[in-house]
Amino acid sequence: MEKKKVRVTFQPSGKRVKVDKDTTLLEAGTQAGVYISSICGGDGICGKCRLIIKKGNIKANPTTLLSREEIRKGYVLACQTTAEGDLEVEVPAESRAEKEKILVDKDAQRFRALYPQAEEKTFFKYDPLVQKLYLELPKTTLQDNLADHLRFYREIRRKRKIPIMQSGLKVLRILPKILRESKGKVTATIGIRGETTEVIQIEKGDTTEESYGLAVDVGTCTVVAHLVNLNNSETIDAEATYNSQRVYGEEVTRRIIYAELKGPDKLREAIVNDINNLISTLISRNKIKLNDVMTLVCAGNTTMVHLLLGLDPSQIRREPYIPACTSPPPIRAAEVGIKINPRGLLYTLPSISGWVGGDITAGILATGINEVKSLTMLIDIGTNGEIVLGSKEWMVCCAASAGPAFEGSGVKHGMRAAAGAIEKVETLADGKVKYSTIGGVKPKGICGSGLIDVMAELFKAGFINRSAKLSPEASSRIREKNGELEFILVPASETQIGEAIVLTRADIENLIRAKAAIFAGADILVKSMDLELEEIEQLYLAGGFGNYLNKEKALVLGLIPDISPDKVQFVGNTSIMGAKMALLSREALERSYEITKKITYYDLITNPGYMDEFISAKFIPHTDLAKFPSLAKKL
Amino acid sequence: MEKKKVRVTFQPSGKRVKVDKDTTLLEAGTQAGVYISSICGGDGICGKCRLIIKKGNIKANPTTLLSREEIRKGYVLACQTTAEGDLEVEVPAESRAEKEKILVDKDAQRFRALYPQAEEKTFFKYDPLVQKLYLELPKTTLQDNLADHLRFYREIRRKRKIPIMQSGLKVLRILPKILRESKGKVTATIGIRGETTEVIQIEKGDTTEESYGLAVDVGTCTVVAHLVNLNNSETIDAEATYNSQRVYGEEVTRRIIYAELKGPDKLREAIVNDINNLISTLISRNKIKLNDVMTLVCAGNTTMVHLLLGLDPSQIRREPYIPACTSPPPIRAAEVGIKINPRGLLYTLPSISGWVGGDITAGILATGINEVKSLTMLIDIGTNGEIVLGSKEWMVCCAASAGPAFEGSGVKHGMRAAAGAIEKVETLADGKVKYSTIGGVKPKGICGSGLIDVMAELFKAGFINRSAKLSPEASSRIREKNGELEFILVPASETQIGEAIVLTRADIENLIRAKAAIFAGADILVKSMDLELEEIEQLYLAGGFGNYLNKEKALVLGLIPDISPDKVQFVGNTSIMGAKMALLSREALERSYEITKKITYYDLITNPGYMDEFISAKFIPHTDLAKFPSLAKKL
Repeated sequence: MEKKKVRVTFQPSGKRVKVDKDTTLLEAGTQAGVYISSICGGDGICGKCRLIIKKGNIKANPTTLLSREEIRKGYVLACQTTAEGDLEVEVPAESRAEKEKILVDKDAQRFRALYPQAEEKTFFKYDPLVQKLYLELPKTTLQDNLADHLRFYREIRRKRKIPIMQSGLKVLRILPKILRESKGKVTATIGIRGETTEVIQIEKGDTTEESYGLAVDVGTCTVVAHLVNLNNSETIDAEATYNSQRVYGEEVTRRIIYAELKGPDKLREAIVNDINNLISTLISRNKIKLNDVMTLVCAGNTTMVHLLLGLDPSQIRREPYIPACTSPPPIRAAEVGIKINPRGLLYTLPSISGWVGGDITAGILATGINEVKSLTMLIDIGTNGEIVLGSKEWMVCCAASAGPAFEGSGVKHGMRAAAGAIEKVETLADGKVKYSTIGGVKPKGICGSGLIDVMAELFKAGFINRSAKLSPEASSRIREKNGELEFILVPASETQIGEAIVLTRADIENLIRAKAAIFAGADILVKSMDLELEEIEQLYLAGGFGNYLNKEKALVLGLIPDISPDKVQFVGNTSIMGAKMALLSREALERSYEITKKITYYDLITNPGYMDEFISAKFIPHTDLAKFPSLAKKL
Repeated sequence: MEKKKVRVTFQPSGKRVKVDKDTTLLEAGTQAGVYISSICGGDGICGKCRLIIKKGNIKANPTTLLSREEIRKGYVLACQTTAEGDLEVEVPAESRAEKEKILVDKDAQRFRALYPQAEEKTFFKYDPLVQKLYLELPKTTLQDNLADHLRFYREIRRKRKIPIMQSGLKVLRILPKILRESKGKVTATIGIRGETTEVIQIEKGDTTEESYGLAVDVGTCTVVAHLVNLNNSETIDAEATYNSQRVYGEEVTRRIIYAELKGPDKLREAIVNDINNLISTLISRNKIKLNDVMTLVCAGNTTMVHLLLGLDPSQIRREPYIPACTSPPPIRAAEVGIKINPRGLLYTLPSISGWVGGDITAGILATGINEVKSLTMLIDIGTNGEIVLGSKEWMVCCAASAGPAFEGSGVKHGMRAAAGAIEKVETLADGKVKYSTIGGVKPKGICGSGLIDVMAELFKAGFINRSAKLSPEASSRIREKNGELEFILVPASETQIGEAIVLTRADIENLIRAKAAIFAGADILVKSMDLELEEIEQLYLAGGFGNYLNKEKALVLGLIPDISPDKVQFVGNTSIMGAKMALLSREALERSYEITKKITYYDLITNPGYMDEFISAKFIPHTDLAKFPSLAKKL
């Protein structure tokens, strides 16, 4: 019997889709190209995928995540609802996962936001992983009658010291014709493949002017790509998008479970599609031919890299957390479906362990921890919080399962660093609220840097106490709604979304848990080396926060250890920065392998002291004020 | 307008095909799977593709290659004839190119015939290019939490010293599942890829018992394959077939021209199909699974290797004779269409130049010229005659365009070393003719060793003189037919083919030309090193002659230099022997590369003295008897 089809129309976009009657509205949204927020991947747990039914009948599983009032207004959870007949639904602003650009196009702000904040280190020799060489081969004679293949290699070796070279049949097959038609004047594109160098392309004449590559940060939430001119190492343009795998689960673990149950193909297709869209936007905007893009270097956490390459991530979530592969070989990008030159190469930066990935290796490369004498810490706040401690002598690292609160997930009005996000809050004192949004538009939500500010200001204003409890008597902007306290950051009249932007008790708890997980991780890591937090000489704070992160407020919150602010530096997205360094320097790629061999992974989950530290860190700034001496004085 | 179709039936096989009206009967035969002899590849020059029209009307180009009598009997040249309507034709025995096995199955004789005659050299360490390793990986723990990929490599490195390893995504993708389902007990198949070693397969449990490889001699005329057990280096079985590329031209140059005009695909498909058929026969006869055949090593002349890999051979026939590639990399056999394990590897032995190929590199490897102190010569008689001279100190080589006469082509009743071939002729003295055939059956034709014997015996009996002219008065078995003299070797009553087996004046001229080309090449090569022929301390005579080659008769004919017979050794098919050595030893493969770097190619075509030497060598044994002192005494 054929399944009954129903038509679902999503407002305000008006997008339509015809689906089987028992398809969830979340899945229908995916099929229609309407992205609906979801953290839990469709299990009815997160309550993010709220829709409003406008017309038509539905069937919905009961849920405690919607209030009676909301239900009366027609709210449903998309993942728990199917259509009984044709349907018209509205996707309210808070549920709209942004498929569109994260920051407004042509916006200098945007462009800067995608950039690393740290200065690019220049200690690596310029030597792109893939590069073009113009060659002029001498005429063949009876005395110089080497085969085309070896004559071609000989000429390359006159320009570059390459002991081991290889080429596929495709290049060898066209070699005689190209060499003769061009009278020996050709351009070879060579690429590093482990210990060997592959000639991946031969073209007639001199095409060296057109040589491009991409650095890509494959984040759990966001995918960022930089287009680089390989001739002068200039970054031409940047673009970002959300990782559309999140319909299969916002958290890494959820995606691993999905891959285990349903196979890794859909997840691979989702991320490959995202990267292809970014490439397509970048090359058309800059009038570059796809064929002249010869390579991309990706940095991502271990699971993201597994999913990109179609590797089996299932053991990463089980003790002892074994990845399939921490150092995937360079492959042809086309092998996973990425559309650049069909012979182009895809590199992934090596991971350190199942829970500390190539994005952190990139961060170490970008900040140069492995090169310095002083004790340095890197905290990268993303969907998880990874912490690296060390110097050129030794390095240790750990991953704190902070959750994605600081990326705006798991927070009612949380959002990514995109236009309309509150990125900065200067004061919350009654009557003096002062905030600013990305793009200067009306607010839609709060991004990571804004959340850190809000939390610190709530505390400074006395609206929350050291245990992060809201005090209803402290401000008229603290109200009870559906039996829960919340703080009104922006009244409904001032927002884009037709309702107030608030921070709920649950949001505050999530944020406190996240900061506690990160601080506890940093603390345990320092202790594990018999050191004290105050001995840290340099602290790098990394993450996709956009343009701005207020380190003083991060300290007030107890997110980072109490050291002198001049020792703290916000470095932005170090993942893409490291990827770009590798793209432009073979030495940097080799260094990234050395880093993963040199560093020791420290497992927090099995550390018996971690849970105590975590609980102690759930205060502002901490239960033990001795850990925050500079703050203790002020309190 | 659609082309008119006609039906052509080939007798005695009864095979039928429907073709466009303007298709030549040669092409129709190819399409029907009926193999018709052809040397010139369809240019109407060789006169080998004779058919007899039984029923139906034809249109034929005029030819001087058929006598009036033959035309009256219905003979046509298949390549010069098209059908006007439905047709029935007979393929006479002399035109039948043998698609069937070259030697009778289950025939010890046959099996021996495919084998090299020289003893296998054992100076290489047993270390197959592709081999299986059984591994037991220790249990993963938090302390030993290396990624599957590196743990797997670590275990391989505990068994083998392998600095650089690689594996494709296919292996990495299944690794976690296989390791866990087999509790770490797995078999890895590793293969050499240039300077790196690839893990090409991982299987559950211990499968090391089943590990096979193939050595293949890709000859211009004949393709020979040996099936080898890689566990004990034992040759299990052998099989041979004709190279079905010969419908596109018997000679190498013809095939290059065909590839230039029509592209290399058909030629590649033809040889790949031949090799697949050999593999299929060998594995089904020996009850081996295709998946357990992990590799094949091919040796062939430079053009055959180009055509096998789909490389462009067009420059090989033009001065300065530049091949696309003399040292093709190992590739996945599936890349060219060869059906073994889909991840299995195909190796080709490196060539020395455009006209001295990997079959000769194999010959040097097999005879060990590059390892000995004494001055050694190798003459390999195939479709061309290649000559190597040297020792461990130095080596030179050249190629004499002898033509395929000694392989039985270009000789009216010539045939390959197959059942029914006259392989030995002891005397031709009138009344005392004594010959023997392969398989002891009635004769069908004469193979290479038989042709050498016949020529020598014709001379010894006084039926031909020193300039190889038949003397009609010397024997009643010399007759004139169609205005040309011929010698009746076997009367019609004693043959399988319903007519006498003869050697015509043209045949004798072809054979003399072939021997003269080879001898002149050897002579020039020796002179080029300021040496004399009598200084040769060891002479190896190689070729697909089957079981037998009478070196004294080769000397009488002047095919080989006049040195003591105890210094001459018939070594059979050294091409397959060298291929097998490489299959079984990485060291041997590496040595083959060293050989090609060490040896100097000497071009005969542009040597100003070569033509004079060639003309002088067209006498029996030679114009200059001083070059054959031992024969001069007897004459």
